[in-house]
Amino acid sequence: MTDKADLILHNAIVLTMDEHFNQYEPGAVAVAAENILAAGPEAEILAAYPGVEKKDCGGKVLMPGLVNAHTHVPMTLLRGLADDLRLDVWLLGYMMPVEREYVSPDFVKLGTLIGCAEYIRTGITTYNDMYYYEEDIARATVQAGLRAVLGQTVLKFPAPDAGSFEESLAAARQFIMGWREHSLIVPAIAPHAPFTCTPEILKACAALAAEFDVPLHIHLSETAVEVENMRAENDMPVIPYVKKQNIFDAKVIAAHCVHIDKGEIHTLLHHKAGVAHNPSSNMKLASGAAPVQQMLETGLNVGIGTDGPASNNDLDMFEEIRLASFLAKLRSGDPTSLPARTAVLMATRMGAQALHMGHITGSLEAGKRADLILVDINTLHNSPRFRRDPNGVYAQLAFAGKSTDVTDVMVNGKWLMRDRNLETIDERALLEEADQYAQKVDKFLIAREKSMLSKLIAIGGATEEKSFEVQVKMRVEDPEAITAALKQPEIEILYYRHYHEYDTYFVFEDESQGLIRHREDEFMNAEGKVEQVRARLTHIGQTHEREYDSKAMLSRSRYLAPATQSLRFLREYFMPDSELYIEKDRRRWLVNFRETEFYVNLDEVQKPDLGYFLEVKSRTWSRTDAEQKAELALELARLLGADPQEIQVRDYADIVRDPDERRGARG
Amino acid sequence: MTDKADLILHNAIVLTMDEHFNQYEPGAVAVAAENILAAGPEAEILAAYPGVEKKDCGGKVLMPGLVNAHTHVPMTLLRGLADDLRLDVWLLGYMMPVEREYVSPDFVKLGTLIGCAEYIRTGITTYNDMYYYEEDIARATVQAGLRAVLGQTVLKFPAPDAGSFEESLAAARQFIMGWREHSLIVPAIAPHAPFTCTPEILKACAALAAEFDVPLHIHLSETAVEVENMRAENDMPVIPYVKKQNIFDAKVIAAHCVHIDKGEIHTLLHHKAGVAHNPSSNMKLASGAAPVQQMLETGLNVGIGTDGPASNNDLDMFEEIRLASFLAKLRSGDPTSLPARTAVLMATRMGAQALHMGHITGSLEAGKRADLILVDINTLHNSPRFRRDPNGVYAQLAFAGKSTDVTDVMVNGKWLMRDRNLETIDERALLEEADQYAQKVDKFLIAREKSMLSKLIAIGGATEEKSFEVQVKMRVEDPEAITAALKQPEIEILYYRHYHEYDTYFVFEDESQGLIRHREDEFMNAEGKVEQVRARLTHIGQTHEREYDSKAMLSRSRYLAPATQSLRFLREYFMPDSELYIEKDRRRWLVNFRETEFYVNLDEVQKPDLGYFLEVKSRTWSRTDAEQKAELALELARLLGADPQEIQVRDYADIVRDPDERRGARG
Repeated sequence: MTDKADLILHNAIVLTMDEHFNQYEPGAVAVAAENILAAGPEAEILAAYPGVEKKDCGGKVLMPGLVNAHTHVPMTLLRGLADDLRLDVWLLGYMMPVEREYVSPDFVKLGTLIGCAEYIRTGITTYNDMYYYEEDIARATVQAGLRAVLGQTVLKFPAPDAGSFEESLAAARQFIMGWREHSLIVPAIAPHAPFTCTPEILKACAALAAEFDVPLHIHLSETAVEVENMRAENDMPVIPYVKKQNIFDAKVIAAHCVHIDKGEIHTLLHHKAGVAHNPSSNMKLASGAAPVQQMLETGLNVGIGTDGPASNNDLDMFEEIRLASFLAKLRSGDPTSLPARTAVLMATRMGAQALHMGHITGSLEAGKRADLILVDINTLHNSPRFRRDPNGVYAQLAFAGKSTDVTDVMVNGKWLMRDRNLETIDERALLEEADQYAQKVDKFLIAREKSMLSKLIAIGGATEEKSFEVQVKMRVEDPEAITAALKQPEIEILYYRHYHEYDTYFVFEDESQGLIRHREDEFMNAEGKVEQVRARLTHIGQTHEREYDSKAMLSRSRYLAPATQSLRFLREYFMPDSELYIEKDRRRWLVNFRETEFYVNLDEVQKPDLGYFLEVKSRTWSRTDAEQKAELALELARLLGADPQEIQVRDYADIVRDPDERRGARG
Repeated sequence: MTDKADLILHNAIVLTMDEHFNQYEPGAVAVAAENILAAGPEAEILAAYPGVEKKDCGGKVLMPGLVNAHTHVPMTLLRGLADDLRLDVWLLGYMMPVEREYVSPDFVKLGTLIGCAEYIRTGITTYNDMYYYEEDIARATVQAGLRAVLGQTVLKFPAPDAGSFEESLAAARQFIMGWREHSLIVPAIAPHAPFTCTPEILKACAALAAEFDVPLHIHLSETAVEVENMRAENDMPVIPYVKKQNIFDAKVIAAHCVHIDKGEIHTLLHHKAGVAHNPSSNMKLASGAAPVQQMLETGLNVGIGTDGPASNNDLDMFEEIRLASFLAKLRSGDPTSLPARTAVLMATRMGAQALHMGHITGSLEAGKRADLILVDINTLHNSPRFRRDPNGVYAQLAFAGKSTDVTDVMVNGKWLMRDRNLETIDERALLEEADQYAQKVDKFLIAREKSMLSKLIAIGGATEEKSFEVQVKMRVEDPEAITAALKQPEIEILYYRHYHEYDTYFVFEDESQGLIRHREDEFMNAEGKVEQVRARLTHIGQTHEREYDSKAMLSRSRYLAPATQSLRFLREYFMPDSELYIEKDRRRWLVNFRETEFYVNLDEVQKPDLGYFLEVKSRTWSRTDAEQKAELALELARLLGADPQEIQVRDYADIVRDPDERRGARG
């Protein structure tokens, strides 16, 4: 730091947002290189630093740049794609398919630059991101000149930038090591959410974040359903669960926290976690109203975020500031809740603290970086201005201010916007690029509107199964030899079930549509009587050829949904080009073999009459886990008497459609 | 109507908002004089009207102007004055005192012009107002060129533009008769709310509105407390109550309806009432989330309003459209509730229908007035644009659009804004005027911060008493002659009470502060034992000299509050310049005299020892009622033996402070 100022910003209403909420009118701020040297009354500052370049702020508000505490910035390219939908339909039917198809380094670069342009225009100088290809996002952010915490996403599903979570973790480590000294970028790791990560993923992320002392950014308790499921599966709410996975070993930034209780708030406080509150997103997706007032009273640092622009649909922190206050008032029934000054604080200093960057940005104080904005409040929609109450100016910003009132933006001592002109980004070029991209996505989605998966999702809560399937299958001549082989001491039988299964497959000429399987399971009791029947729909995606790594492993997406409609309805709805019908008797064991659980199916395929088959099966989210399990599955199959030459990994639908196989059938 | 077009607007994304939600891209609209001649595909319209002046809309959205279904436009001048306060403190402590002091024809003119400038800038072409001096608001609105329904406020309190509700009613009749043929203005009557009007006011307003077939604009069921009080007092919720007062004889525009049930929704539908939903205001004042989705499903016409800018704090319908959707989703927990297209509909055609103006404005259809706007959606914050889903453009407007995207506005065939330049209003001049006014109000309020009434309100729910006090008071030599006189057959005694009263008056050198009276009432039972004690604070305002109309009537504001604090606390809190202490024994009768109820007090003022006084008292909201009661009170006093020469109307505090009176005291 130096005592020589490079620039004095004067003739402003200076809102420092420091601990005492000092205001100076007229006030001034002295900047030296990338730092703030001093903020104070105009006369004092001008006298202290004579002969320095001056900028007359024309009576505008001079305040810290806004901190967007939670977003997915490249999703600017997905905004307006699909709205007013239920979360699963929106996510599984639109966002994820388009992301799988389009998300690439070029995509995130374009999306980030559009987002950064919008950030600069609306006075955001720091943002906290969670997405894919964060290294490319970092480059675009540096090009724009903004400050950011960038969290490389890790989840149990294959991601657009990684075939498995192990790849994501490795990429995250690489990213953190490469960027942790950067003046604008704080690299971070972002395990997506407890329900999209396994306990081991959460633990690995926490360890990585702790190793490099970088933030860990995660979605927590966004919806009531998430909490319900967590309680049902783990007998505890979300915060204790993630604590159990050690995530608080890291500096946590917890997005949402809509459905957390008093004890969980205290846990977050105890572990110095920051919270990112996202009022627009929580309202638009009907997630609920977070207990922000209670969090603040407890002493948590709560920032405000826009969330991704696909669920907002813009990146306007003025809107979020206003809504943070409105939503708290509505939730409590008390109009004095979360007053304007607190909302502005959450969007500045407290937001920076929630991102564990309180020492760097968020207020106009000597020693912090020069991240600041000018806001014109001398507008019609903010007229008149009453000066009686010093909190009045916060109310002006929060309740009547518009993001378009921001005229000038500086980050790290560098002007990014002057008098509403962007200095680092060519908006026109971006608009054209975005338009070309939108045309491509439109075409893709219009084609996809005919997608069977989309149609399945549209008629009811489809859930995705674990990505990696381990499967060993072979013909069996003597089924009783198998039941005898199962009695070997290496195999522990955990349970046994007996089913009769009626499968109808809908087949499409366009093979990329995959298959839709309608299955009725009759569950037979010990006397061989039908005890219970259930019907399920499964969408079986095309096998990813590149994922064939072993004779016992494949990767194909599978979505399950309850089949509440009749087969007639489903036929009319999906309009298959042809159908397959398979009826079989299934004896199924869940076994423990070398400390690994497998399903063993002994099937008699009765229609068409194909005879007996043995299947050894398992599913997992992890590629390395799948590889290990594939070896074990083969070993178990051999132990049960399988001939390695006979082993195959196909589904019955494939076998039935194979003329060679049918010749091998009995009768 | 003519078939000759004057202007073709072309090269636009035309959103007609007609019954079929027809869209044309590229589309065009033909305008003839003040009317829309046709809307349709560009090629068709250009071919149908050759050789007509054209405006190229540059690919912007061309849609109906927005309809602001509920506001108090001149309150632009009060925005930012006081925020984050409880409703009573905000209203009684800030809004009403400033309104009493400042609201005048000049005030409403300036406030209206600022509001209209903001309306035009943000794409609002029609608004529905409720305020004072509506005739002046009408003139300013016509100057700005906007369309409006303007409701002259009527309430039981004296208003800034009327000393009594009878005056307001007379002014409303005058206003309606003078303006009902105007091409831009629909005059209306606005009884403020059920709890600020008497049944007779509601009935009179309904009759007036029905007589001239103009709308009746009223606040209904805004808060839960309003409904609770209504149920406690009248044993029914708000809608049945106002129905009983005949308001549905008129074309009703019901603002808020936050707390209404299914039956009430059906009543509103049956009577073709329109509803104005105000999401920002309902959130900011913590009133609640209205059951908008249910109203829409039932078939009600629900418009969207900004409410007054003092409780919002801006007039931004883009924000309200977005919040209407967000709030409905939050309330229902269902993100498919109130989708974007419905929100835009509520702000256009359905809003006009809610104002009973569906035949005039709200959609781009042949025969309606040319009230239209251009919105630039080719902006960064609205990029990219997906065309797959025809509802996408509504989502762009509702979820990512900003009011500052509006570039051009036409009302009644006349341009009010072109390329963001206002054509009818000088913004700079308005800003300066508003600033001068704000400085005056600041001074006034800084002085008022010392106001005893504000301080009383600040420490607990003060309620205002009826405005007009009828009081006859006189010295009595023989108290038992009075008790005998009360037995005359013309006087029916309804009940009798016996009190001992200890009054401490806080007196201020600044007489405009009025007096604060702390009274402890000992309620004595038949045996003369103290049965119950209560303490109350009363702020007694200065008597309005101009209201002295008779020897038995005066008008002074009185606010009552429970006194839960000790006298010591109150002394320290109010810091009076001096105190008065009066102790008296009071025998009180409630009597019925000529079908009118009066309180008769027979007081023995013991400290200081002033002897006996007789008081005949009544309070009312109505000036004419007060005048009649004053005559009767005098008559009753004479019947009880009063000497008309002796009659006075002063309070004991005045009498005690009068040296002449003290000389007349006993002992």
